[in-house]
Amino acid sequence: MTPILAFAALMLASATSAFPFGFPDCVNGPLSNNTVCDTTADPLNRATALISLFTTEEKLNNTGSVSPGVARLGLPPYQWWQEALHGVALSPGVNFSTSGNYSYATSFPQPILLGATFDDALVNSVATIISIEARAFNNDGRAGLDFWTPNINPFKDPRWGRGQETPGEDPFHLSSYVRALIDGLQGGYAPKYKRIVATCKHWAGYDLETWNGNFRYQWDAPISTQDLVEYYAPPFQTCARDSNVGAFMCSYNAVNGRPTCADPYLLQTILREHWDWTNEQQWVVSDCDSIQNIYLPHGYAATRPQAVADALNAGTDLNCGTYYQTYLPAALEQGLINITTLDRALIRQYSSLIRLGYFDPPDVQPYRALNFGDVNTPQAQQLAYRAAVEGIALLKNDGTLPLSITPETSIAMIGDWANATTQMLGNYHGIPPYLHSPLWAAQQLNVTVNYAAGDSSPGNPTTNNNLHVYAAVNKSDIIIFASGIDNSVEAEDRDRHSIAWTGNQLDLIGQLAAYGKPMIVLQMGGGQLDSSPIANNPNVSALLWGGYPGQDGGLAIMDILTGKKAPAGRLPQTQYPADYNAQVPMTNMSLRPGLNNPGRTYKWYTGKPIFDFGYGLHYTNFSASINPLEATTFNISSLVTGCNERYMDRCPFHSLSVNVTNTGETTTSDYSALGFLTGSFGPRPYPKKSLVAYQRLFDISPGATATAVLNLTLGSLSRVDEMGNRILYPGDYAMMIDTQPLAMLNFTLVGEPAMLDQWPQPPPRVPQNNTGNYFVGGFDGTGQSVVYS
Amino acid sequence: MTPILAFAALMLASATSAFPFGFPDCVNGPLSNNTVCDTTADPLNRATALISLFTTEEKLNNTGSVSPGVARLGLPPYQWWQEALHGVALSPGVNFSTSGNYSYATSFPQPILLGATFDDALVNSVATIISIEARAFNNDGRAGLDFWTPNINPFKDPRWGRGQETPGEDPFHLSSYVRALIDGLQGGYAPKYKRIVATCKHWAGYDLETWNGNFRYQWDAPISTQDLVEYYAPPFQTCARDSNVGAFMCSYNAVNGRPTCADPYLLQTILREHWDWTNEQQWVVSDCDSIQNIYLPHGYAATRPQAVADALNAGTDLNCGTYYQTYLPAALEQGLINITTLDRALIRQYSSLIRLGYFDPPDVQPYRALNFGDVNTPQAQQLAYRAAVEGIALLKNDGTLPLSITPETSIAMIGDWANATTQMLGNYHGIPPYLHSPLWAAQQLNVTVNYAAGDSSPGNPTTNNNLHVYAAVNKSDIIIFASGIDNSVEAEDRDRHSIAWTGNQLDLIGQLAAYGKPMIVLQMGGGQLDSSPIANNPNVSALLWGGYPGQDGGLAIMDILTGKKAPAGRLPQTQYPADYNAQVPMTNMSLRPGLNNPGRTYKWYTGKPIFDFGYGLHYTNFSASINPLEATTFNISSLVTGCNERYMDRCPFHSLSVNVTNTGETTTSDYSALGFLTGSFGPRPYPKKSLVAYQRLFDISPGATATAVLNLTLGSLSRVDEMGNRILYPGDYAMMIDTQPLAMLNFTLVGEPAMLDQWPQPPPRVPQNNTGNYFVGGFDGTGQSVVYS
Repeated sequence: MTPILAFAALMLASATSAFPFGFPDCVNGPLSNNTVCDTTADPLNRATALISLFTTEEKLNNTGSVSPGVARLGLPPYQWWQEALHGVALSPGVNFSTSGNYSYATSFPQPILLGATFDDALVNSVATIISIEARAFNNDGRAGLDFWTPNINPFKDPRWGRGQETPGEDPFHLSSYVRALIDGLQGGYAPKYKRIVATCKHWAGYDLETWNGNFRYQWDAPISTQDLVEYYAPPFQTCARDSNVGAFMCSYNAVNGRPTCADPYLLQTILREHWDWTNEQQWVVSDCDSIQNIYLPHGYAATRPQAVADALNAGTDLNCGTYYQTYLPAALEQGLINITTLDRALIRQYSSLIRLGYFDPPDVQPYRALNFGDVNTPQAQQLAYRAAVEGIALLKNDGTLPLSITPETSIAMIGDWANATTQMLGNYHGIPPYLHSPLWAAQQLNVTVNYAAGDSSPGNPTTNNNLHVYAAVNKSDIIIFASGIDNSVEAEDRDRHSIAWTGNQLDLIGQLAAYGKPMIVLQMGGGQLDSSPIANNPNVSALLWGGYPGQDGGLAIMDILTGKKAPAGRLPQTQYPADYNAQVPMTNMSLRPGLNNPGRTYKWYTGKPIFDFGYGLHYTNFSASINPLEATTFNISSLVTGCNERYMDRCPFHSLSVNVTNTGETTTSDYSALGFLTGSFGPRPYPKKSLVAYQRLFDISPGATATAVLNLTLGSLSRVDEMGNRILYPGDYAMMIDTQPLAMLNFTLVGEPAMLDQWPQPPPRVPQNNTGNYFVGGFDGTGQSVVYS
Repeated sequence: MTPILAFAALMLASATSAFPFGFPDCVNGPLSNNTVCDTTADPLNRATALISLFTTEEKLNNTGSVSPGVARLGLPPYQWWQEALHGVALSPGVNFSTSGNYSYATSFPQPILLGATFDDALVNSVATIISIEARAFNNDGRAGLDFWTPNINPFKDPRWGRGQETPGEDPFHLSSYVRALIDGLQGGYAPKYKRIVATCKHWAGYDLETWNGNFRYQWDAPISTQDLVEYYAPPFQTCARDSNVGAFMCSYNAVNGRPTCADPYLLQTILREHWDWTNEQQWVVSDCDSIQNIYLPHGYAATRPQAVADALNAGTDLNCGTYYQTYLPAALEQGLINITTLDRALIRQYSSLIRLGYFDPPDVQPYRALNFGDVNTPQAQQLAYRAAVEGIALLKNDGTLPLSITPETSIAMIGDWANATTQMLGNYHGIPPYLHSPLWAAQQLNVTVNYAAGDSSPGNPTTNNNLHVYAAVNKSDIIIFASGIDNSVEAEDRDRHSIAWTGNQLDLIGQLAAYGKPMIVLQMGGGQLDSSPIANNPNVSALLWGGYPGQDGGLAIMDILTGKKAPAGRLPQTQYPADYNAQVPMTNMSLRPGLNNPGRTYKWYTGKPIFDFGYGLHYTNFSASINPLEATTFNISSLVTGCNERYMDRCPFHSLSVNVTNTGETTTSDYSALGFLTGSFGPRPYPKKSLVAYQRLFDISPGATATAVLNLTLGSLSRVDEMGNRILYPGDYAMMIDTQPLAMLNFTLVGEPAMLDQWPQPPPRVPQNNTGNYFVGGFDGTGQSVVYS
């Protein structure tokens, strides 16, 4: 009963409200003479001095996301849980005003659409604005200083409900994106004062919500070391090793038998040691209640105190929830943790706040001067609009687009996305200053608009209530059908069970196409749908994918449709045929094809995708050429000898200049040069190709040429072996520009393979404990039930 | 475009409100001289005379569930869609008043708990009251006269969301139950005036809602002829052949390539011809929108007019929805249907209303005198209570039950079912006069009650917010934990993906059990959960299954717990271990074990169930003996020669007298004598056993003996071959009483096998059409995706 009694006392302490956010008084408060308030001391010493004042009870009480602080020391309570996925977002630590100032913040497109821009500079700008607005909120006491964003798990399976939160399926793309993002959020690699602390989540292997009775809280993901290094880890490696991110979040799931928040291999051996993520202010937070999950339902720890001890000892410094606060006392009493480990966790947290200026005079910190005048600026509005324009991908066009419209034109706006409001935001959103739907944007044109939502939303395919749709279409010249999926179908805790358009949607599209009028279909939502019935219908003029385009999404769409803007977004995910759903269970974590797995992502999928990763049309055509290298054969030993980086994959190989020419006659357009490497090198099987570099070029006029510079590193050329080692192999390489290659460059590596990175080997799989409870996994078609006990 | 234009006109017609229900004026109205108003004419002639007055348009307009009637003939509109699954229920045709009279009706337990009573007489009484109350509602213009109940698809798969609507998994049990039910609902086998028309649904093979991307609307169930005859069809055979039910409903799914509503094999060959369901008033209604589904998403018909033609020609007489009204005009125009078929459908419908007295003088019809004084009578209330008492099954008892309570006793009422309100009703419910929860019932006892809901509901297993629970338990002598599942987990359009208790429920149960106090767990909900962690926990004193117990469910539970009533319910379904979920996809329709199938129902399941079908403890013990037959060997040819029934399975074999003795010393108790047949006869594999007869005995005092009479027919002894033929085979038979047999009787059949019923063979599987749309089925672990096109 001891834990239960202890729980009662601590719940009250931890329930303290954290609003409004305040700063400690380093001038007159009890801490004013403590080293923590000495701005000349280094952060580690400052944090250590602070924590040394805490009693053990005060230490234990400050291990949860709602930290009560220490009133007797003048240390205010602090709420660690803020969200800002694509703008300052609704979350426990963010307090939007009900009206007026701070009642809204800029709402950018979801990451899945930001990813589709293939424009890292844009991503950096977006992140900069988000963090500036976050600081403004903080200065008004309306938010903390750390934010639990980005979600950077690769979007491997199209059914994943949270794939929308990520930039897509490709690990290089995610890595490149996240480096730009974190630089923007934190205000540089190692600024004196961080703008905010970002949190790379969810380390590792989290890409399943609830699928066929498998729940994220109990799911034990079987991941080979090769897949981990090659696919699941790279964005996190970039966060930790290359971006100096302030925080990490461990995940709900287990990997190979160990809940990630209790796994010293993932949190210490890989994250902190192998990736050198050892600055004093870098902390790991659990996902919300995922420490509880170590006990239940994972059943990894036999008792609750053991669960919290396992997490703290593994390196989970902060608990989203109350489990640490509740059960660490018993863990300490039972000798399962020691004070040093507890201190380490607290020092990491408070060092982080020190790096954010929490204990420093406001007047020396430029971010402390930000206010609501820095929120929703015209520049921010314009950027949100531009981000949507840049991401939207044109998948089909028979020449109907861009639309020719006159004041006499009538447009039917059909579908459940036509008049979208918060749908456009996806999840983890804030409150935007406005929401401009496609319908709204059409109504700003000098045309007649006939709107009918139709009954095309996912669900019951038997609806037959579309009279008003036929009426609207009958009197219109042009049909714009906006539908797809939204968070009623894909969301947190909600994976999809189908990747087909629902029957009633296809039926209605088919009926409307039969009118023979110009008809544009907008496929909205994060995860891809099999749009082949639309692509193959000769009466559908055009198809665009619009993701979750944010506050100005409708305007971005209509400006592309009417030619005010030219589309140049690219699909950040493979669009699989609908039967992919039946071919592979979500629980199969392997990338390479095998039993019950036709292969995952464009690298390994053995079937024919409907639209390939990176696919996207323009209103013009482009040609490309790659400036030749001085040589076509390279000796591995020379490449390696010239490399003095600790992490050799970072060493440059060559920068390729890619000249891109707009061969059209009318339309100025952006173009994202995507560089894919293919060839025969390294361990079989070979991937079909791999993205290794990209650059978006802007505003290329008809006839004009622009040059993209694709920087290849030794890492770009490397492969990963079954032990997870990254190796440069001899073999034939080919660099291709674009999905249907516009240019190709061949070269050869010769010599002996060279190890660029030796991967620490995982410990053996843990035998399952027995907590007396048991939890049985779901149906995955193998007939094998995993009993978690 | 023709169908679309036609649609517009007809929608308006069919949208006419059907309220209030009225009767045609056969005295002064335009029909008064038509034969339909001649009570001396036979119903077929009366209906034919009526329909002969309709114009073609009027005929076409009266094919949907909302029938506009024919105003110029004084034929009122009629709403065909009423529900009454376990009481007059909320549905389009039922209009509860907002207060006062007709604002409620008696709400009995869900069929799954009624099934657990194994008391056909009780079921008959329940049905009688439901139909009396329905008539009272009709007499006030608040309901029609036909009701789309019962749902009699066997509850094969524990994950099925609508299994709760059925009496369980065993086809004999369902057949016996449904015969009693229909007799009660309709007021006898062939009364002059039917009390109401019942509708056996859903013919056939419907037991999947939405599972892993397979949707009921598109699901094409592969069912062998042997399984169809042996398992899926028997309750429907009883409805049609043996109960003279007024209506059938065809289902959403297809069977072996044919949507059931378009399948002449199921609707004509089997239902009407083989089962002789040929009375003029017997009609088939589609499930709601299931005719549309023939086109979309089944893609069975290439056009919409073809879909309605396929359905009408196959024998679907009435359309729930508007598809007939919308597309039959085009079907007629295109020659896909003829007027004779249309007339047949209408004659069936109106003959049915004639049999209900619709056109007859009220004063000759006793049911027309029923009013609100006949609703919610004390007898009805008492019956609802008794039905719940009879169904509740005791699964574990260490002697704690019945509880000893005194005024000093304190009881902790814990769990999300403790204070249940509408949860107790399950789905397809009406508005009950009251809802007595377990908490309410406990509060009526002269004890102290400490209530805490706890956070044990299904979903997120990470909750840790049970402080108030510990507080309630700390100060109580006895713990009653009421939880399980409800319609948030199992429902229409919602199959389960797990049959385990959720982790947080088990965790909380484990914690509470650790207090060492007397603790009773109530497993509520329709589908079974794997309760082995509860059954195996020595600190849990008792376990009961309570289903959805209806308006007085809480009182029924508490009266059993406190010993005011003795439990004698039996599980109407197998309680499988949790890993059954992983072993067989819902889409595997086979009963016998095979690849990816450990066998289904108690007859074929090769694993060890947690609790067997028919399991249920008492507060006393029983012994049983079977009076011996005059012989132990029977000659098949003699048995068959003595049988002159058209359907030879009905011929009696022998009636077994089973003497049941209460061997306990204190408790008077009911006992349901369940007779299972086992042995080696007929085609291999043999089922483990089969229920062939049952009878509930009442109020057996300690030391007393009561006698059950189990009537065996030739059908009881028969087996079904792969062609679906029902055959009497030579072999060794053993009759066993109860699940752990209390008595056994052996006998032998000798001679040549004899065919009792020759099953009409199905047509070959239809090749798939191509409608231009396609719809892809979900994940079932086979890696094969069925493309419906």
